[in-house]
Amino acid sequence: VAYIYFKGEIIEESEARISIDDRSFRFGDGVFDTALVVNSKLYDFAAHQERLKRGLETFEIEIDIANLEEIARTLVEKNSIEEGYVRMIVSRGENGPEAMGYLPVNTQPYLVVQTAAVPFPSYKQLTLWVSSYEAHMPLPSKVNASLHYVLAMQEAAKQGCENALILNTKGHICETGSGNIFWIKDEVLYTPSLQLPFVAGTVRKRVIDLWGGAVEEGVFTLDALSEADEIFMSNIGHMVAAVKAIKPLGYAAKSDVLTQQIREKLIAEIQAQTSV
Amino acid sequence: VAYIYFKGEIIEESEARISIDDRSFRFGDGVFDTALVVNSKLYDFAAHQERLKRGLETFEIEIDIANLEEIARTLVEKNSIEEGYVRMIVSRGENGPEAMGYLPVNTQPYLVVQTAAVPFPSYKQLTLWVSSYEAHMPLPSKVNASLHYVLAMQEAAKQGCENALILNTKGHICETGSGNIFWIKDEVLYTPSLQLPFVAGTVRKRVIDLWGGAVEEGVFTLDALSEADEIFMSNIGHMVAAVKAIKPLGYAAKSDVLTQQIREKLIAEIQAQTSV
Repeated sequence: VAYIYFKGEIIEESEARISIDDRSFRFGDGVFDTALVVNSKLYDFAAHQERLKRGLETFEIEIDIANLEEIARTLVEKNSIEEGYVRMIVSRGENGPEAMGYLPVNTQPYLVVQTAAVPFPSYKQLTLWVSSYEAHMPLPSKVNASLHYVLAMQEAAKQGCENALILNTKGHICETGSGNIFWIKDEVLYTPSLQLPFVAGTVRKRVIDLWGGAVEEGVFTLDALSEADEIFMSNIGHMVAAVKAIKPLGYAAKSDVLTQQIREKLIAEIQAQTSV
Repeated sequence: VAYIYFKGEIIEESEARISIDDRSFRFGDGVFDTALVVNSKLYDFAAHQERLKRGLETFEIEIDIANLEEIARTLVEKNSIEEGYVRMIVSRGENGPEAMGYLPVNTQPYLVVQTAAVPFPSYKQLTLWVSSYEAHMPLPSKVNASLHYVLAMQEAAKQGCENALILNTKGHICETGSGNIFWIKDEVLYTPSLQLPFVAGTVRKRVIDLWGGAVEEGVFTLDALSEADEIFMSNIGHMVAAVKAIKPLGYAAKSDVLTQQIREKLIAEIQAQTSV
């Protein structure tokens, strides 16, 4: 039996019931986040809670999530999660019966928290597909309206690629279909600037902090990737995964030595922080 | 008691149960449409069904909706709807337990159909707010990932406006926050071209067909609206509503005579087709 937190209480997942009038079901009107569990402990949880809170504030979804970490800890213990994830979803709820449209009216936002037992991610080497779906909206957090990511991942899979590379309308590199992008050239670490329209990853920040050498955050086009020595992506599902090729760009990685090094640094930090 | 069609059967709305792992709840991964009911009859239903089908095909959501009109008719009768709407929602369903991310894996899409009793829309004069949210993605149908419309409507409401005016990243006029936009200058009817990123309205098509004079579909900037004699929006919720002002553009309508005429033509068609 898997327990979840749902609208203020801990229940069995099978008992949760979302209405067909729910605005997250209807419009993707809500935010979510996913945090890592290692050694039965939450890793870097404050960063996830902070991001979720930023999304709620930006979109004016009024709900207090001050006790989120306590809820997450309770579920990790109750569901006996050693390695895996905690997923947090906020829906704006339903409109009152007098209103049916996009404009929120008398909504009652609510929080769902669930866990998943998943082994710690092994090292992967991925191929990316340059997506025909463009990044467009500055995103303070992950949002439940994520169809463009779904379509970008679906398109990449059809091309035999494991992930997508998403640009904005001006051709600037933004992110992958499910995480941030980095590349290394002459031992300098490059990554798109947070001015660009993508979600600032919690792992992205850890990678920058742990790198130890020069880091350049900026606005880049595909040319920058063509010349890279190594490329990798970061997210909570892979931690760090090498990008071995980008199609149809024609990029093929020359190396993944530094990618593996930064991954090991990150894993060492995670182990240190969760084995206390 | 309101009956709905849910996953293959007709049930009471309160019995419907959507999982927290549903991809429409999680990601807005699905499509929807809303059709008008007048005199207990469906109006222009084929256009809605066709649009929904186009969305399903584009997004590769595999579900057969051939019997949609029959389902809609059954619910209109069972729920005794004289005037109102039929809303159709397709969710891609849940991923199998082996996959949690954006990429659809072994999903089972399903259809939800519900009705709402709402009086036929009275004539409205609206003020629009030029949105800071930009249109970006070509949309074959309405999509469940509609957070940008929610935010555009929310922003407009905060500015004391009833709806939003949405431009693309190049400043081209696209649509309102919940329907299409038209304007009249020297008795020519203007509206954004379907090449632009917005959903082609069923009412938009009826307005163009019924206009009877010159129609120009094209790519326009806000200057075109500043000079307009009349502006109106079209959707299934208003049919045709006059735009009396656009903020902060400073537009104030000089007239709404031709707007009222086209609305009356449309209502005459609806009455004729639903009173058989």
